[in-house]
Amino acid sequence: MNLRGKFITFEGSEGSGKSTHIQRLVRRLHAAGAETFVTREPGGTALGEEIRHLLLHHRSAIMSPETELLLFAAARAQLVREHILPALQSGQVVVCDRFLDSTTVYQGAARRLAAESVAAINHFAVGECRPDLTLVLDVPVEVSQSRVRTRGDGKADRIEREDGDFFRRVREGYLALAQAEPHRLAVFDSTRPPDEVESAIWKTLHERLA
Amino acid sequence: MNLRGKFITFEGSEGSGKSTHIQRLVRRLHAAGAETFVTREPGGTALGEEIRHLLLHHRSAIMSPETELLLFAAARAQLVREHILPALQSGQVVVCDRFLDSTTVYQGAARRLAAESVAAINHFAVGECRPDLTLVLDVPVEVSQSRVRTRGDGKADRIEREDGDFFRRVREGYLALAQAEPHRLAVFDSTRPPDEVESAIWKTLHERLA
Repeated sequence: MNLRGKFITFEGSEGSGKSTHIQRLVRRLHAAGAETFVTREPGGTALGEEIRHLLLHHRSAIMSPETELLLFAAARAQLVREHILPALQSGQVVVCDRFLDSTTVYQGAARRLAAESVAAINHFAVGECRPDLTLVLDVPVEVSQSRVRTRGDGKADRIEREDGDFFRRVREGYLALAQAEPHRLAVFDSTRPPDEVESAIWKTLHERLA
Repeated sequence: MNLRGKFITFEGSEGSGKSTHIQRLVRRLHAAGAETFVTREPGGTALGEEIRHLLLHHRSAIMSPETELLLFAAARAQLVREHILPALQSGQVVVCDRFLDSTTVYQGAARRLAAESVAAINHFAVGECRPDLTLVLDVPVEVSQSRVRTRGDGKADRIEREDGDFFRRVREGYLALAQAEPHRLAVFDSTRPPDEVESAIWKTLHERLA
């Protein structure tokens, strides 16, 4: 399996196990001899991390959905040009915690912004830089909410504080996207034991990117 | 002249006299009994002022033109919804230092981003909230550059540090916009004495918004 210059993204709601499975996948990629560049959204650049802070922890309670979307897109535009494209061009495997689909789902499906506007701004932000494979970790809304609550620090961020209806639309948004683009997205039942999910992800990589 | 709920913007390159003429216009508006809401871009909200800081003073030398445009649009989306629309609805005259046209000119004309993308994102950011009248203060590039240099603090921001070619495209961008939308934009020769420009602006308000 030659993974040089492949772009893999992880998607899923809060508490769906993205961090765990990114670590596990990266370990396997290294064992297979691949060079990786691992990053996250929003953030991943000096400027993007400051935008992340505004998005997740700004003291102002008021943020319009349009502002939110534009800030996510700004952080992403910077990340693509500053890190992702150069890493892909140098042959690294790029693994990103959230990307374009998060905006389609969170701001489009869940906040109900017009799908055409979301698509146009997504395109402006990333151009032709699209993931080769997107791994969606799926858990029921109750599971993801309870995982967020028991994370320990007790300080949910601005988006984690949304209600159950919001996260239901997020989950449905991801499943609809996977149906619309079955060749790019693969959905995993993340209520299964982590070892099992890890193996399924690795198998999918071989099938899709071989 | 009934100015209730009118939206007036000032545009022009650095050092073209916007601050001076905003103060002078607001003084006249108050004398005429109007209530005003005066704001600026990027900024004008708690969140927007933080975005302004990222845009003008971020330590990272690298900012892609796409990121820049999306950050301006994010600050604007917030300003429109948090302040401008409520102020207009309450009957105030809103006077804004820079708005939509700055993006069309700086990121579109001067940074050469595709005009259709700029227009689409502008529309997403502000919806139907467009200025009733836009006052463009025009000065030759050399005048605006020397005014910026002699402002005293000696610390030009990220955009003020651009070169003469950039500001030439800015100036030409404004003049082209004024030709394309002559009913909304009015251009003033801001090398003329301030009293004279102030009178010309006040006369234009009467003619255009009466």
